Amino acid sequence: MKVVALAGGVGGARLCDGLQQVLAPGDLTVVVNTGDDTERHGLLVCPDHDTVMYTLAGIADPVQGWGIAGESWAVMDRLALYGEETWFRLGDRDIATHIARTARLRAGSRLTEVSLGLQASLGVASRILPMTDVPVRTQVLSDDGWLAFQDYFVRLRQAPEVRAVSFDGVDAASSTPEVLAAFAEADAIVICPSNPVVSVGPILAVPGMRDSIEAARTRGVRIAAISPIVAGRAIKGPADRMLASLGHDVSAAGVARLYAGLADVFVLDAEDADLASAVEALGMRTLVTDSIMTDGAARARLARETLAALG
Amino acid sequence: MKVVALAGGVGGARLCDGLQQVLAPGDLTVVVNTGDDTERHGLLVCPDHDTVMYTLAGIADPVQGWGIAGESWAVMDRLALYGEETWFRLGDRDIATHIARTARLRAGSRLTEVSLGLQASLGVASRILPMTDVPVRTQVLSDDGWLAFQDYFVRLRQAPEVRAVSFDGVDAASSTPEVLAAFAEADAIVICPSNPVVSVGPILAVPGMRDSIEAARTRGVRIAAISPIVAGRAIKGPADRMLASLGHDVSAAGVARLYAGLADVFVLDAEDADLASAVEALGMRTLVTDSIMTDGAARARLARETLAALG
Repeated sequence: MKVVALAGGVGGARLCDGLQQVLAPGDLTVVVNTGDDTERHGLLVCPDHDTVMYTLAGIADPVQGWGIAGESWAVMDRLALYGEETWFRLGDRDIATHIARTARLRAGSRLTEVSLGLQASLGVASRILPMTDVPVRTQVLSDDGWLAFQDYFVRLRQAPEVRAVSFDGVDAASSTPEVLAAFAEADAIVICPSNPVVSVGPILAVPGMRDSIEAARTRGVRIAAISPIVAGRAIKGPADRMLASLGHDVSAAGVARLYAGLADVFVLDAEDADLASAVEALGMRTLVTDSIMTDGAARARLARETLAALG
Repeated sequence: MKVVALAGGVGGARLCDGLQQVLAPGDLTVVVNTGDDTERHGLLVCPDHDTVMYTLAGIADPVQGWGIAGESWAVMDRLALYGEETWFRLGDRDIATHIARTARLRAGSRLTEVSLGLQASLGVASRILPMTDVPVRTQVLSDDGWLAFQDYFVRLRQAPEVRAVSFDGVDAASSTPEVLAAFAEADAIVICPSNPVVSVGPILAVPGMRDSIEAARTRGVRIAAISPIVAGRAIKGPADRMLASLGHDVSAAGVARLYAGLADVFVLDAEDADLASAVEALGMRTLVTDSIMTDGAARARLARETLAALG
């Protein structure tokens, strides 16, 4: 059963880990948000890709969810001594990823090729595809003006209210052959419990992406989406406040509304069982289950139940 | 007493350390070879500059003479895992230097500005000036064709015989304002015990460099050169074999011949005292002394004696 998952960072990575656990090796393809990508110290950093890659390689830091377990910080400490910005902390092993990626891109490879190469070196059984090879950079409008995403997310610790979101470059972006092939071969599509606005939003905004998904649906492929909002709060990150400041309902039902007409099955946490009928009124079937992925077994169980609900 | 030293890597760095010890803070300016510079993993590495910088900052690895004492290798090990070339080993703290340098150059700064900034962060009391801001890349002709310098020096461990040397880009290079000012203010010039062909050679090949030195001499500035060859052997590196394969006399006198008409004082090791008259026949005064810099005190003594011999 070939599955394509749309994912952002930590929450998405955890469900992808569950999917990888329950699927045959190679049957999972993750299409990952690149709107969070940023250039730090001249190196291209792809936070969502790398979080998913490290998670699927089994080397992610288990506490913070991003970065590599047991990292050292010699490079960053020295960059600090040199007066470089340090608000975006990069571990030594992580920096090697960015160095190799940047060098290979400069040598002319596409981001997708580079990403697949790094994944292979780390022994990742699945394929993690950037949503596009064209640079897309998410910007958020704060009360003080537009901010690059990582300025908002890391430097300002998500303190500003987000009044609008823009995916710079997305109009000129296009799907990659690898993403198109993944959808063409998919038996199921899963929208991970990632921020619907700034993680899944950029993926769906890539020209041709929705067409690829629609073409798959026409073939009978079904789509599940898992709510990143449980009991009115984001499991991780600023999705709840962002939904509120953008005028959305801060609930699983509010997320479901964003995926209405796209998803066939919507997965809600048991805490939100009372919202199931509202979601079903949007034209989706619901799966109500424990959606908090506290450990590897919980990830696998949620993945298994989600796929079963599609079947 | 303001001194300008022309230097390559390890041997040059050691004499510069001696000069820095005996001069007032800020009175030493090092003009350093950039012909060894190389791009590794997309990062600009300046081996000679960095060896001098780390040495003058007091953080150089005391055993190997280059790199930083107590280095860790997390980035390099991970780059190896990614299949990157590993024959040019870069420590984690050293990599931070190359990351900061490359980012600042890409942001539009000149190599000289970037270098001075890094030195200031490390608390270096002297100024280390790249010989030019224009990329110059030394190539050596082996029996199997032309090799980039670091291919010859590090990857092939100086095994090939060197039949010719070329400083690619040097014709388009020019002196920097900082180098011109240093010579204009100099009270003395010292040619360090570096490889005369591939360390001092590129510096002297920069258009305008010899004119600046000659202008200083016209003002009465005297120039000392220290032999990197002692008893017919290079203290470090391939200078002896390179001199031989290029048809030069492999001796302190052979080196002196390369500096005839340029240096006023030539410093020979006591082991080569019998060559003093041959050197003097070239029109240079000689200083015969212990030129092996076994420790910091020996560096300072050699520096002091060299400056005294100019006086």
